[in-house]
Parts: sequence; structure tokens; C-alpha cells
Amino acid sequence: MSSPIDELLQQLRQFRDERDWAQFHNPKDLALALSIEAAELNEVFLWKKPEDADPTRVREELADVLLYAFQLADKYGWDIPQLMQEKLAHNASKYLVVKAKGTARKYDELS
Amino acid sequence: MSSPIDELLQQLRQFRDERDWAQFHNPKDLALALSIEAAELNEVFLWKKPEDADPTRVREELADVLLYAFQLADKYGWDIPQLMQEKLAHNASKYLVVKAKGTARKYDELS
Amino acid sequence: MSSPIDELLQQLRQFRDERDWAQFHNPKDLALALSIEAAELNEVFLWKKPEDADPTRVREELADVLLYAFQLADKYGWDIPQLMQEKLAHNASKYLVVKAKGTARKYDELS
Amino acid sequence: MSSPIDELLQQLRQFRDERDWAQFHNPKDLALALSIEAAELNEVFLWKKPEDADPTRVREELADVLLYAFQLADKYGWDIPQLMQEKLAHNASKYLVVKAKGTARKYDELS
Repeated sequence: MSSPIDELLQQLRQFRDERDWAQFHNPKDLALALSIEAAELNEVFLWKKPEDADPTRVREELADVLLYAFQLADKYGWDIPQLMQEKLAHNASKYLVVKAKGTARKYDELS
Repeated sequence: MSSPIDELLQQLRQFRDERDWAQFHNPKDLALALSIEAAELNEVFLWKKPEDADPTRVREELADVLLYAFQLADKYGWDIPQLMQEKLAHNASKYLVVKAKGTARKYDELS
Repeated sequence: MSSPIDELLQQLRQFRDERDWAQFHNPKDLALALSIEAAELNEVFLWKKPEDADPTRVREELADVLLYAFQLADKYGWDIPQLMQEKLAHNASKYLVVKAKGTARKYDELS
Repeated sequence: MSSPIDELLQQLRQFRDERDWAQFHNPKDLALALSIEAAELNEVFLWKKPEDADPTRVREELADVLLYAFQLADKYGWDIPQLMQEKLAHNASKYLVVKAKGTARKYDELS
């Protein structure tokens, strides 16, 4: 039985191929598309307090970010939960609890 | 049995709470953090042909984007595969195969 | 006598040519570099109230944004104050005082 | 006699105050607005070769980036050519000609 992630990837490939869009989907432009969607996500919050942003629009723009992120991972053939697990473990070692607790400082500013 | 996505969300909550970072994680700053990671992802491709970017760095920066995207969705209590499914269906209706095939034009420029 | 803008453009061209960087400076990558610097500017404000960001770092990152913006304009041979004047006049017609006063809504949401 | 930059700043202040927008223009949201315009600039190049982007749209989006960059500098009361001059001098010391010539590597990757 396929996972929800595998189903999404399968549908994204079909979506792309029905439109003959593989020709445009090099990783550099996929990453660029992702960052443009990230900006549209941020625009929902612009000039507003965090709690005043419209959740419906946040949800739609966040979805577009995720759809491009999944396509970029798929372009390289990566397992998505695995790459996230690895990076989370790496971040945990950069931001040790004993040093990072209660501060938003970057890892290279932690003493 | 929990899914890989649920496991990741569980670990992300633990990572955040061990560091007492919930105080910083309002949705506006989470979206901002996501877009900053998206820029770091793009930096891997800067001044380069798509195929010359270092896959190891692409993988790491993409992971950071996904980790913030998951945290933002979790902040609102959303089901991640479901919000992606909904948006993919919506995009399919914006980009009809008959009009969008083989062109990279935006939906509002399709005739 | 040359203007401060002309002097900067002259120095930027020299900076680029001494390093033999014109080969990398196509407009697509210049725009990408600009957006990466914009993200570094935003990072100075991340997880913070606006007034808590370090002005010294804001100034440096804003400068990098401006340096790439000037180089991109110069790539096309445009007069910078003129293109800004034109867009400001255009924005004034999109955001009529009578409709836009006191609201942060986008022009297509103004009634 | 006022410079083109001073004239633009004067007009930007008037544009803002006529619309009563100073209430929204904290530096964090100005920086965010700038990065959103930077993304719109990048969208003109998305899925395209650099030379296939529409110069008219590049010009308009670049202008919006510059208008926000100027407003952010003005918020802090900074002299724009001066902050650019200082950063350009700083970048010249980070990217020494003898090391950086002909390579697009970042300063911390130069040997």
C-alpha cells in the first residue's frame, strides 16, 4: 500500500507530464519557484500581526511551497522523510539544548 | 502505528520545546524563516548551471525549508498531505491540460 | 561633474571587471543574488520585534540589496532615478489616496 | 538644489503620508515588502533563459524593490550613496582581486 507522500509524488508527476512541463523543471528553476511561493506565503502576513493573517490564504500558499519542495526532492530521487530526519538530527547537534534554550540566537552566536 | 509525517511532527515539537522556542514560533516568523531557508536553497544554484549545484547542499537546504513548512502547518493543526492534495486539485483546475500543455505561462496569461 | 549614482555604477563596473565576473552577471542570476541578499536582510529581523534588530547589520544587508539592484539596472542601461519615478507615479494611480488612506489592503482589494 | 535621490525620498514620504501608511512602515515589514518585490522580480525570469525575460516587467519589479529599499534606508535616516560606498569597499576587501578573479565562489570558500 502506498503512503500519502508516495501518492502525492505520483500525482505531481502525472500533473507535470500531462502538461509537458518536465522541460521547464530543472532543479534551479524549481528552487526559484519554491522561493517565489514562499514570498507569496509571506505576503499574507505583510503589514499585519501574525494572528491577523487569513488562514485560508496561508494554507493555500504553504501548499504551493510544499508542492514545489516535494517536486524538487523527487527530481533528485530523495526520500523526503529521511532527508528531513537527517537534517533535524544535524540541527539538534548545532543547537544543543544546554546552549540554545530560550534564545533565538543563531548557532554561530551561541557561547 | 504512526506515519513518517506524524513522527517528524512529534520530533519537531520536542525539538522546539526542549529549547523553549515556542515563544518565537508565531506563524509570521515561521513563514519568514521558511523564506530565508528558501533563499539559502537558491544560493546553492547562484551563478551556476542547474546541474552544477552541489546535491549535498541542495538536500540540506531543502530539508530546512521542509522542516519550517511542517512546523507552520502544525502550528495551525493542519493535515499536510490533505492540504497538498487540495491545492494540487485546485492547480489542476487553474492549469487545464488543454490550455497549459507545453507552455510555462501563468494561468492568467493562458488564452 | 558626475552624480553619486554615476560614481557608484562606475565603481561597480570596475569591481566586477577586476574580478572577471561579467561572465556570471546575467540578469537572471543578478535578480537571484538580489533576492538572496533580501533574505539576509530579513534574517536580521527574524524572531524579533522591529526595533530589536541590529541597525549595523540592517545597513550592511540593505547595502548589498542596493548594490545588486544598481548592477541589474546598469545591465539594462537604465537610468535609476527615472525608473523609480515612473513606478512611483504608476503606484500613485493604483493606490488612489481617496481609496487607500489608512488601509494596507492591496490595490485589487480596494473598493 | 536637491539631488534626484533626495527628490525621490521626498516624494516617497509624501506618498506614504497622504495614504496614512506610516503606521504600517516599521522596518521589519518594510524589509519583508522588499523581499516580496524581489520575488516578483525573480518571477519574471522563472522557467526562462535570462535573455527571454520581458524587460518592461523587469524594470517595473526592480523599481518596486528600489522604492522599498529607499524607504527602509530613509526610515533609519541613512545616506544611501554613503552606505553603498561603505559596503562596496567592505566587499572589495572580502573579495580580493588576486583570489576572486574568474571564480564565483563565496569569500569563505576562497583559498
